[in-house]
Amino acid sequence: MTDAVLTRLLADREGFVARLAALVACPSVSTDPAYRDGMAAARAWWCGRLAEMGFAEVREIGAGGHPAIAACWRGAGPGAPTLLVYGHYDVQPPDPVGEWRSPPFVLTARDGRLHARGVSDDKGPSLLALETLGAFLAVEGRLPVNVAVLLEGEEECGSATLEKILHENRAFFAADAVLSADGARWRADLPTMTVGTRGSMAVEFTLRTAAKDLHSGRYGGVAPNALHAMARLVTTLHDEHGNILVPGFTDGVPPVTEAERTALAAIPYDVAAHDASIGIAPSDRSTAEFLERLWLRPTLDLNGMWGGYTGAGGKTVIPAEAHAKISMRLVPGQVPAKVADALAAHLRAHCPPGTTLEIRATRQGTLATHLEGAHPLLVAAERALEQTAGRAPLRVRMGATLPLTDIVQRVLGIGTVMFSFATADEDFHAPNENWRESAIPEGFAAWVALLRKLEGTTRADFTGFRAG
Amino acid sequence: MTDAVLTRLLADREGFVARLAALVACPSVSTDPAYRDGMAAARAWWCGRLAEMGFAEVREIGAGGHPAIAACWRGAGPGAPTLLVYGHYDVQPPDPVGEWRSPPFVLTARDGRLHARGVSDDKGPSLLALETLGAFLAVEGRLPVNVAVLLEGEEECGSATLEKILHENRAFFAADAVLSADGARWRADLPTMTVGTRGSMAVEFTLRTAAKDLHSGRYGGVAPNALHAMARLVTTLHDEHGNILVPGFTDGVPPVTEAERTALAAIPYDVAAHDASIGIAPSDRSTAEFLERLWLRPTLDLNGMWGGYTGAGGKTVIPAEAHAKISMRLVPGQVPAKVADALAAHLRAHCPPGTTLEIRATRQGTLATHLEGAHPLLVAAERALEQTAGRAPLRVRMGATLPLTDIVQRVLGIGTVMFSFATADEDFHAPNENWRESAIPEGFAAWVALLRKLEGTTRADFTGFRAG
Repeated sequence: MTDAVLTRLLADREGFVARLAALVACPSVSTDPAYRDGMAAARAWWCGRLAEMGFAEVREIGAGGHPAIAACWRGAGPGAPTLLVYGHYDVQPPDPVGEWRSPPFVLTARDGRLHARGVSDDKGPSLLALETLGAFLAVEGRLPVNVAVLLEGEEECGSATLEKILHENRAFFAADAVLSADGARWRADLPTMTVGTRGSMAVEFTLRTAAKDLHSGRYGGVAPNALHAMARLVTTLHDEHGNILVPGFTDGVPPVTEAERTALAAIPYDVAAHDASIGIAPSDRSTAEFLERLWLRPTLDLNGMWGGYTGAGGKTVIPAEAHAKISMRLVPGQVPAKVADALAAHLRAHCPPGTTLEIRATRQGTLATHLEGAHPLLVAAERALEQTAGRAPLRVRMGATLPLTDIVQRVLGIGTVMFSFATADEDFHAPNENWRESAIPEGFAAWVALLRKLEGTTRADFTGFRAG
Repeated sequence: MTDAVLTRLLADREGFVARLAALVACPSVSTDPAYRDGMAAARAWWCGRLAEMGFAEVREIGAGGHPAIAACWRGAGPGAPTLLVYGHYDVQPPDPVGEWRSPPFVLTARDGRLHARGVSDDKGPSLLALETLGAFLAVEGRLPVNVAVLLEGEEECGSATLEKILHENRAFFAADAVLSADGARWRADLPTMTVGTRGSMAVEFTLRTAAKDLHSGRYGGVAPNALHAMARLVTTLHDEHGNILVPGFTDGVPPVTEAERTALAAIPYDVAAHDASIGIAPSDRSTAEFLERLWLRPTLDLNGMWGGYTGAGGKTVIPAEAHAKISMRLVPGQVPAKVADALAAHLRAHCPPGTTLEIRATRQGTLATHLEGAHPLLVAAERALEQTAGRAPLRVRMGATLPLTDIVQRVLGIGTVMFSFATADEDFHAPNENWRESAIPEGFAAWVALLRKLEGTTRADFTGFRAG
């Protein structure tokens, strides 16, 4: 028995790729004001496409930052649940641009993958979701559930105004659950459902050792060097095994249990292949230790560090300033502001003599989240994947962060199911971001199946999974 | 009794400043290929001016790098000594450009100083020297000694081809001593003669921890971070007091003697005022310790360190590469290549597990030098300064490097007297480089006096101070 909606989607694959090419051609980098026009172009493209597919109330909704795109379809009636379908239209910066094999904002097919900044995170997966809904409307004139659409414009820069946008438009976005097209599959060869995310926090700091950069001959030996001081300070953050040494960093985090470690050990995973795939030195970690570090433990990573002369040739200077950017991944029990305070206290305590330190918190931070196992949308999603992928998905967590899951839990009182067809090895935040072409037919089949599983569900099914 | 040459020079001060403004307007940055046109413009300006002043054989002489400018006047006869008058027309990069209070290549008078990149190092002092010689030719039709002029184009990038230029033109540059307009006075309030310079060596290195930059959520906890590794490696280079920990670094360096320490302690110097002048935390160093660290001990300074995302906003990346530039100042007894080898061995030995290291020596290196006390040009220079400054100059050393002094000793077998009217606090290699306006009349008087002291000297006076 063929599904007419799926047939339509698969028959128009070329049209889908052409639309995706138009979308990635909009350089919608939210972290850098220089890309303002690219952000506007991506919004204009989405609004046009959503209206064309038959969504109602298509519009931009802002709250002081990059606006989100909103739309809805509410024809399933008041007894049917409402799903808030989420994606984001913003992308990471393309830097370092020189390392791309094809231009970052030109969709380029190579080796079975489509390449472009944002193609995997999250333009491809979100377009897959919305095009599926559009096909339902085109073929059947209706959807099995009510839908509110939210395409965020600040996912890559900490979702600073997402909470305000949802607060100020609570009636519009009121829903029984969030169905997210963002979040990425853990791997392509094994169906999984992600039931937890790490939180995040970010901090920048600057060390100063002198009023100005100094000549290394005329002051060398008698003037302090900001880069030496920075190296010394950064080295206090971890021990030689990479364990975090910041006092108070893990306050409130329950220890990992033996039951959790046993569950992790049961997950099939080739740690050696992972290490080889990203070109790092092979570790001797077990699967359980590997997954514990990735899912259940927090991290503290320098994202950038710089100071002095970094151009071509030499400059014999003693730098007076050094800078660093740090991001942290948090686990349930950690509060972003408290973690940032602990880090700031550590940096102040270990700031080398003769240096001054300026610390800036650059994000509001995001809590880690965890989804309950009996959630009706989670169960429907698992059944849909079991049908289209041929086996029941494994419940996993992810090391990354979705501010969304934290914010919708707090503002709308609902949980989030991630139903993404990106995969974790697709270099989202690095040069040569790419997306498997095979995700297109797999994703269409799964999204159609999920909507079919939701036929006949009611708002009452979600009782007990909504707060308040 | 007024000196007609000096009178002419002082009367044309405005003309001198106008010529200096034209010279600094040529952005002759030798370290960066982007400034190629500025280098050519500075050469063209100098060639025009030297010919105008009456020098012979004005020309550019290259040996594969930035050409030097050469000229001569040999009218004093074969019994008179020949001095090789040295300066350089290249300058440091203007970075960071945003910190300049006036455009770096526009001569701007402010607070009794002229500001521009290169005004102090070395365009002002070298123009002062050549204009004095030109005034002798204009007023008296002759000079007291024979002169060969050498204006180098690679002083700021390690003088890579200076040795080849001198080798290939030994007959032209053959001389009894070098008289350098580069090198800087130690301070403006005390006449000094510099009898020693530190050598230099530079090295760059890159650490790699993965094949590519990685997403900090999806790999955080299981992937190494190149910036953490860089910080850990850099921290092994010094102890917490800034003492160098590289084994073999000071091999061949005799210990500082008590006699040397006593001589240093006798030099008047306000260490607290020095620290305050550059905005560093006050140290409790004695003058002797301060000067020992600046003149008699080697240094190892990071000039630049960078990796990961350094732009606006955040990027949640685990960097796969980190980079550093190091320059070292050397003292007599240290051999640049051996010092670089010792540093490379140390870096390899302390390279954190799981990282790969690539080391590049970026300069050929320069030996430290020291001038004998009875050298006739040194004595003449001291007498000239005693006459014009009102007191006998103090013999001092400098912490900085002049590749010239090393190269001319090896290639031409002669010593170098530095007779510069730049001063050490003029921010040569930093933003807002400046030159005291008072250096113009002081410099003219001293250069005229020096040439008068050389009247009647013969080649024979230099016997014993030339090699071979």
